[in-house]
Amino acid sequence: MTPAELRKLSAEGKFTDPTTGYCDGYVQANMVVLHKEYAEHFEEFCRKNPKPCPLLEVVGPGTSLTSKLAPGADLLDTIPRYRIWKDGECVEEPLDVRKYYSEDLVFFLLGCSFSFEEALISAGISLRHVDEKKNVSMYRTNLPLEPAGPFHGEMVVSMRPIHRSQVAEACVITSRFPEVHGAPVHVGYPEMVGIDHVEKADYGDSVDIKENELPVFWACGVTPQNVLVKAKLPFAITHAPGYMFVSDLKNADYATGV
Amino acid sequence: MTPAELRKLSAEGKFTDPTTGYCDGYVQANMVVLHKEYAEHFEEFCRKNPKPCPLLEVVGPGTSLTSKLAPGADLLDTIPRYRIWKDGECVEEPLDVRKYYSEDLVFFLLGCSFSFEEALISAGISLRHVDEKKNVSMYRTNLPLEPAGPFHGEMVVSMRPIHRSQVAEACVITSRFPEVHGAPVHVGYPEMVGIDHVEKADYGDSVDIKENELPVFWACGVTPQNVLVKAKLPFAITHAPGYMFVSDLKNADYATGV
Repeated sequence: MTPAELRKLSAEGKFTDPTTGYCDGYVQANMVVLHKEYAEHFEEFCRKNPKPCPLLEVVGPGTSLTSKLAPGADLLDTIPRYRIWKDGECVEEPLDVRKYYSEDLVFFLLGCSFSFEEALISAGISLRHVDEKKNVSMYRTNLPLEPAGPFHGEMVVSMRPIHRSQVAEACVITSRFPEVHGAPVHVGYPEMVGIDHVEKADYGDSVDIKENELPVFWACGVTPQNVLVKAKLPFAITHAPGYMFVSDLKNADYATGV
Repeated sequence: MTPAELRKLSAEGKFTDPTTGYCDGYVQANMVVLHKEYAEHFEEFCRKNPKPCPLLEVVGPGTSLTSKLAPGADLLDTIPRYRIWKDGECVEEPLDVRKYYSEDLVFFLLGCSFSFEEALISAGISLRHVDEKKNVSMYRTNLPLEPAGPFHGEMVVSMRPIHRSQVAEACVITSRFPEVHGAPVHVGYPEMVGIDHVEKADYGDSVDIKENELPVFWACGVTPQNVLVKAKLPFAITHAPGYMFVSDLKNADYATGV
């Protein structure tokens, strides 16, 4: 299935699965949609915290059609599942958000670590959550974010157990993807960043860390959703976790200096 | 002082200090000198273990003059201090080795981590042993080397404490210097590589590892000396630790993909 086909089926309500594992090689993006009055601060927040909030494209106000990630794709229905947020709480998980459209909405598309996982696997670095067909393990940390307006909080990280002999290489490979979280924010010693239960993920699924493996932590795209909850905005739309916007760009387009 | 001046003074017996801190920006090299009958296996050993034994130049047999690292420099007297090894034991530390020259000697010049330390410091990653004017901390490990002929053993590593927020960057920066040890061979958890006393270095000086720092381990140029001792060759020459060959090449010449 091509990204265009997946988006068309999503718009018709015929594709309703998580997008992990579909359209290998293509960039998938997180989405956050806000009224214009909050958009400026949110964009500033992303620029100040590029590792957890790597901005790939800003769409609107006045349109819901992307021009960079998939020219002409409508962000109101091409994602398989959305979340509607009111006062910091998720109130609905609809298959499209056409009825919520207004001229003053701004759509933020943010990078996702799916993009660098492909590069890790190509380099022979196996990823347990992929092998076990699980969601990646994610944790709240005590790593502070740079605040902007109502947006503030701590970073959420994803964790992948990596064999000790491949940790440096994993840092090097993912550093080549600065627009999709980049190099790890922390290696080993979970307690140093405020994680006291690495065996139990805060979000996603838990995986074993085996002998001779280190837990390696990357900034995670769940961070902005977490920040949205804290900001308790009257209204926001996001993608539903795991149900991403599938773009026409290749992951390789986001690799630099290779 | 230029590298040529330092080498000239060394040859005249007027420069007899360790070379650390001299000729900033220029590549310094470890040296191993063997009779031809062992040279082929030693070269194979270096090629099989490029991280601890990064070969920069092979000189001879039939000459002691370098052609790549410092064209025309004589390896018999341009290093400030040498070691003479007999049957695996250091028997002398002379200022030159002219009297030991024979037509069948082969000179190996090997990369040294001084080269990437400059790049780390330039990136704002401070190195405690440099700040405290100490020798870097080095440790024996249980990391096996690929054997070749009489040469075998385990890797020696150098350790630098790095703040947790800079570990990934340190991996990325040093990965750009594949000919001078490259990226770390291990990060954190000293016991995973057979080091059970990280607070006490096996070679060099010990330094503190402070809160929020991880010990980061790189393959070390002391490895070949250690292997030589084990091989108990009837005769070998090396530089004395800390008294390196100072070349005319710049460290930046060994950076790739920057």
